[in-house]
Amino acid sequence: MKFAIPREREDTRVALVPEVAEKVKALGLEILVEEGAGASAYYTDEEYASVATVTTRQELLKQADMLLCINPLPDEELKQLKKDAIVISEFRPFLDKEVAEKLRAMGLRGFSMDMIPRTTLAQSMDVLSSMASIAGYKAVLEAARHLPRYFPMMITAAGSIRPAKVLILGAGVAGLQAIATARRLGSMVEASDTRLAAKEEVESLGGKFIVVEGARDDKGAGGYAVEQSEDFLQRQRAEVQARAAKADVIITTAQVRGRKAPLLLPKETVEKMRRGSVIVDLAASTGGNCELTQDNKVIEHNGVTIIGNSNLAGLMPQDASVLYANNVFNFLKILVKDGQLTLDMNNEIIRGAYFTAEAKAEEQA
Amino acid sequence: MKFAIPREREDTRVALVPEVAEKVKALGLEILVEEGAGASAYYTDEEYASVATVTTRQELLKQADMLLCINPLPDEELKQLKKDAIVISEFRPFLDKEVAEKLRAMGLRGFSMDMIPRTTLAQSMDVLSSMASIAGYKAVLEAARHLPRYFPMMITAAGSIRPAKVLILGAGVAGLQAIATARRLGSMVEASDTRLAAKEEVESLGGKFIVVEGARDDKGAGGYAVEQSEDFLQRQRAEVQARAAKADVIITTAQVRGRKAPLLLPKETVEKMRRGSVIVDLAASTGGNCELTQDNKVIEHNGVTIIGNSNLAGLMPQDASVLYANNVFNFLKILVKDGQLTLDMNNEIIRGAYFTAEAKAEEQA
Repeated sequence: MKFAIPREREDTRVALVPEVAEKVKALGLEILVEEGAGASAYYTDEEYASVATVTTRQELLKQADMLLCINPLPDEELKQLKKDAIVISEFRPFLDKEVAEKLRAMGLRGFSMDMIPRTTLAQSMDVLSSMASIAGYKAVLEAARHLPRYFPMMITAAGSIRPAKVLILGAGVAGLQAIATARRLGSMVEASDTRLAAKEEVESLGGKFIVVEGARDDKGAGGYAVEQSEDFLQRQRAEVQARAAKADVIITTAQVRGRKAPLLLPKETVEKMRRGSVIVDLAASTGGNCELTQDNKVIEHNGVTIIGNSNLAGLMPQDASVLYANNVFNFLKILVKDGQLTLDMNNEIIRGAYFTAEAKAEEQA
Repeated sequence: MKFAIPREREDTRVALVPEVAEKVKALGLEILVEEGAGASAYYTDEEYASVATVTTRQELLKQADMLLCINPLPDEELKQLKKDAIVISEFRPFLDKEVAEKLRAMGLRGFSMDMIPRTTLAQSMDVLSSMASIAGYKAVLEAARHLPRYFPMMITAAGSIRPAKVLILGAGVAGLQAIATARRLGSMVEASDTRLAAKEEVESLGGKFIVVEGARDDKGAGGYAVEQSEDFLQRQRAEVQARAAKADVIITTAQVRGRKAPLLLPKETVEKMRRGSVIVDLAASTGGNCELTQDNKVIEHNGVTIIGNSNLAGLMPQDASVLYANNVFNFLKILVKDGQLTLDMNNEIIRGAYFTAEAKAEEQA
């Protein structure tokens, strides 16, 4: 089977890096890589050439039995693939309700990396977690870059500087990594989360946990946050607003899968912040946790910088690609045996990812 | 006496911030601030208005008895000042041999903040140190921003990432702050300095000290580095080159006052580095420690990003302005009594800074 990796057109990452390609090859797959696929992640064609055939996009689309890309190909390219080809990507079928039917109509079989269940067993394949962790790290670095003040406390001959205050909303994977990074840089950190269970994790990283009572339980939500009541969100916003005026940096990470992100920072809260303060909104692509956020833009409002970047992992393309490739390889280990697809629908990971399965269409019907 | 602060034309910083202006006013000075002077450091005219007269540049130049700005005014504006006016700025008379005579010819008295002796007593006025410290901090943040890899070690379900290796050349104020910041972010740090005395400081911050034997002593150089022999520099370059291939980040801070910066990273060393690695050259404005550095530019050579930014303090304008203003206030405390200049030429700090004194002209003659 020919396993093909095209160059990402609007991403600096690449779904497979040379060192992991070796391991994928050992599964019995023949690897094709598009020319320049790794360039923006700092991998050269020469590095791929020792393990893969480096070729043109056209040739690659024609020959692929299995195709892997982080961002789904446009329809006109999907159509060029062989009948029955396997496509692994992030299709977000929970947002795009038609994508499964679309692929079936094209005669393609689709696996969506973002549909792998978030169980302990599947942790090593969880691209959402590995990328969220990078996003949390990078969010702090972006904040530190834009903040016109120091993060750490400085006691110098020219006077003392108090440590920056960082407020982190949402203590999931991204939020926890943001807490850890902000603490590393010497700032004071407060964090909130709808899950009271997050308290211990926040505190173990040196953050102070802000309690807002009365959140809906998310047990059984498969590792995702659940939507909260308007009443809860109002109390949360009030709690946040009281702290925003003292915060130098606010990082928001609250997302609910398949829905618009909850509004945590209305305009009036932003206007209470000190000039020069920074907001990084990781929920920018789903509407933003801040009312003023613009996706993929950095704006300033009343002296407050608001960063809406929904692909922070793309700012760290080399390690992001390494981790992505590791996730994919761990998935391929259960999907491919001796160079052949083993579509074990009793395996809940495969069942979760294989979103174009006819069985699913029937379930939904 | 009217103490005037114009807006910096090519800098985000401002030499006096509102909170320090209060203290300067208490010395008996009347403060004039140009409209918008604090804008890019996130201070508003309203904040200055409670302690100062906010006015136009033209009015300010006309009325000033004492004028303070970080970057010297252009000649055509200096000419507009009153006869006998006092100008405090960074004139760099050690580079610009004509500047003292120029100011004298205009009938101005000049104090250069960068001529304050680097003694223990004058530490609180040392703008070179406070700005170098910011530069060291920001250099690491800029490196972390451009590095396509993580700084800290990460042990995740998707695999382990080794910590970044950071090599810091020059362990003065900037270098030490860079070491501290790189360590905070979880990277491994090696550092070298011509002064063996730096070993202890580097190690106390968690860095590994690289010894290159045979450096010239800089005792008696007044806190500045001295120029090293070509033989020493060659051995240092060889030592650096051996490590460069393994480094993810190199930060160079080696400067010799009044001279071209020593060459530590020739082109061939850069070409030994891994793709994606980052060089931050703090000596960019004096020719650069890296052969390929371009001042105030970010370039890429063979996949290595080379950042030549000679005003990193300007990337953190608010705290930079606070510390600058504190330095200036501490200097004014010895220069001004009851609103009048007290030109005590027995004070070595005043004698050092007052670079247009006739006595100096005679000394030089």
